[in-house]
Amino acid sequence: MSILAARPVAGCPLCGEAGGVPVASAGRWRVIRAEDAAFPAFYRLVWREHVAEFSDLPAAERHECIDAVSAIETVLRETLAPTKINLATLGNVVPHLHWHVIARFGWDSHFPNPVWGAEQREPSVPAVQRLALPLAELDAAVAHALVPFGAE
Amino acid sequence: MSILAARPVAGCPLCGEAGGVPVASAGRWRVIRAEDAAFPAFYRLVWREHVAEFSDLPAAERHECIDAVSAIETVLRETLAPTKINLATLGNVVPHLHWHVIARFGWDSHFPNPVWGAEQREPSVPAVQRLALPLAELDAAVAHALVPFGAE
Repeated sequence: MSILAARPVAGCPLCGEAGGVPVASAGRWRVIRAEDAAFPAFYRLVWREHVAEFSDLPAAERHECIDAVSAIETVLRETLAPTKINLATLGNVVPHLHWHVIARFGWDSHFPNPVWGAEQREPSVPAVQRLALPLAELDAAVAHALVPFGAE
Repeated sequence: MSILAARPVAGCPLCGEAGGVPVASAGRWRVIRAEDAAFPAFYRLVWREHVAEFSDLPAAERHECIDAVSAIETVLRETLAPTKINLATLGNVVPHLHWHVIARFGWDSHFPNPVWGAEQREPSVPAVQRLALPLAELDAAVAHALVPFGAE
């Protein structure tokens, strides 16, 4: 299955590129891992077609989208026991609908600030080393959790 | 209708206080305006009962929640024609489920950064003066848009 848009918008990076480590792909969306060293358990659900806003989707697709986001959240909670989950869809720079799903920890560089806020501390060890499982296993767990939602 | 939690958690500000200008109230949630001078069209949907994470809700309640969030987004788009809508549920400081719904404009103090990021410019006139309608009318439009979703 192609991960990219059937009707790509010229110049849109999320229409033309994966946007991160491919983790799962379903008919209307894909999930990638963002490769952020400070926040290693940072996934993005990218809507396949180029729409700017969540409310551009009909209700059934909004529900499909948020159910998959919630499934990612659930597997992050079950595997990593994070202090908090952060969900967001901003798109100010890349207005192609994508949802950030980020596991946050009291020890991370920015907590309790948003990942876009001011750094609070410099962790003594790389964040990835403090996760309860290696990223490859986390990716596999996320992919597995998305199968009931149509991912392959 | 009381706007607060039936089973409040001691010390949680969103269990015990409105948290902003009350705009609408339904059985399971309320909507307030955040009173942020830099981002005047900033609304929050606050879940009535104290749950920390979106995935704590059963699917039907997640859908109810996100449908109301999307209705707020839609009315902000229709009334203000913002550059972008930002949606987020973070809760790092107050882990009581609430959704931020923020109309963003290319001229606002932080665009394209998230509202939690670094300021980009100092607007020459107060942001509220650049909105297409007064806040009281915007509040009324948001409240009206939420009536089909159970708000009063």
